Amino acid sequence: MKIAIVAPSCSLKREAAERVAAIAAARGDCELAIHPQCFLTQGHFAGPDADRLAALREVMADRSVDAIWFARGGYGSNRIAEAAARNLPDAAHRKIYLGYSDAGFLLAALHKAGLEVAHGPMPQDVLRDGGEAAVARALDYIVQRSDSGLETGLDGPAMAFNLTVLSNLLGTAIEPELAGLDLLIEEVSEQYYRIDRAMFHVTGHEGVRAVRRLRLGRVSDVIENEPLFGGDEQGIVRDWCDRSGIAFGGPADIGHDAGNKVVPFGSSRL
Amino acid sequence: MKIAIVAPSCSLKREAAERVAAIAAARGDCELAIHPQCFLTQGHFAGPDADRLAALREVMADRSVDAIWFARGGYGSNRIAEAAARNLPDAAHRKIYLGYSDAGFLLAALHKAGLEVAHGPMPQDVLRDGGEAAVARALDYIVQRSDSGLETGLDGPAMAFNLTVLSNLLGTAIEPELAGLDLLIEEVSEQYYRIDRAMFHVTGHEGVRAVRRLRLGRVSDVIENEPLFGGDEQGIVRDWCDRSGIAFGGPADIGHDAGNKVVPFGSSRL
Repeated sequence: MKIAIVAPSCSLKREAAERVAAIAAARGDCELAIHPQCFLTQGHFAGPDADRLAALREVMADRSVDAIWFARGGYGSNRIAEAAARNLPDAAHRKIYLGYSDAGFLLAALHKAGLEVAHGPMPQDVLRDGGEAAVARALDYIVQRSDSGLETGLDGPAMAFNLTVLSNLLGTAIEPELAGLDLLIEEVSEQYYRIDRAMFHVTGHEGVRAVRRLRLGRVSDVIENEPLFGGDEQGIVRDWCDRSGIAFGGPADIGHDAGNKVVPFGSSRL
Repeated sequence: MKIAIVAPSCSLKREAAERVAAIAAARGDCELAIHPQCFLTQGHFAGPDADRLAALREVMADRSVDAIWFARGGYGSNRIAEAAARNLPDAAHRKIYLGYSDAGFLLAALHKAGLEVAHGPMPQDVLRDGGEAAVARALDYIVQRSDSGLETGLDGPAMAFNLTVLSNLLGTAIEPELAGLDLLIEEVSEQYYRIDRAMFHVTGHEGVRAVRRLRLGRVSDVIENEPLFGGDEQGIVRDWCDRSGIAFGGPADIGHDAGNKVVPFGSSRL
């Protein structure tokens, strides 16, 4: 199986690329094709929009590529997501697309266009403590569609998003269709007041109010609130679920960490 | 003229209250009623939601109050904005409501409910360098509907919002109706990547795409982007206007500073 790695957001660290390549080589069940675009830099991004889009479209159209693995998050995939999902080549349909965090913009756009996508660990995660397990989990899913790395609470169609990414998707052309499914959210490096504000926004949206239930993944590296906010993510999320009539479904085993599990979008896997 | 000050977001500093009271006393053309709720604190907020809402509803229903001036921004008015605009007492209609930043959630909700609202300086702005001029500008507008403090580029119906507040309004029950008017935006204390992401979100929304034009106020205290973003707010906003077919109308004289001008919502003043 051939897995292409491209970086639609920020550039991939060389060390991460090398370590992931070594893991794949040791497995012997997959070939990684790390696109040179992963190492481009232009300001915040892994190269200009045109280069990031071209690399993604190139591997989407490549019949020899079985899976596309987004290198990392950061910021920037929203700038090319709508274009990436337009006028899809046939070959784009016979692949799986895996990533999370900022890559959620692409997961939303590509899933909406009918492609198979999943929330899950990315190559740059190998640099985390315990990151090799995250990479192994992602590859097990990509190569074998292994159940072992799935988020264990899944019992119906689901989607998983970073909360802020979801907030920024709502109302756009690539807004996900959430009615009737489990919505799993996670967050990183935000203050509680921003998390509260994003929950106001997200739960104020009719499409989000139509989810089957909302489940809360890990909220990590919370930035200190000045003054102290006076609550935590559990209270915030439960409060907004109560206010908006959304069923709260408890914790979800996802987040910006090595324990981040796989959540296939929609019902194709369940 | 009696002007009530309430704090729907964060608590007002005593020093600001004293200085604004002195300015009003020296003018002799208005009486400030600084509601005790302004000095409550509960975590991030100027008291619990119920107390902030009750104070606001109390002054809205008070026939002796001619204007309601929001004490300051911060975060939290979104938590009570929808309730504040529901089942309005008659007396709420014979008033003007002034504020900006986080108070934009209330401006949106109250304007949508048919009330007269304006973007403009708030009491806590007196603590800024040159803040007395900002307070004088707000009071001139509240008391006299003076043209002198108006944003000078206004030549038709307009609304003004903090960019992040606008992003968090879209899709909610208190989303502003922006079609055909000038949209003025400003921002403070964000990284460029967040500004870019908010512009993606805002300009991806059909209602925003229907504005007459978008004008850019000041973007201050930009938080350093790691790595450097590779552009500034001018480039970001022009780029998203180009992408989304929104006419860019040039600069706007608003922002989180003492120079912040008054922008009456809608067409009532022009």
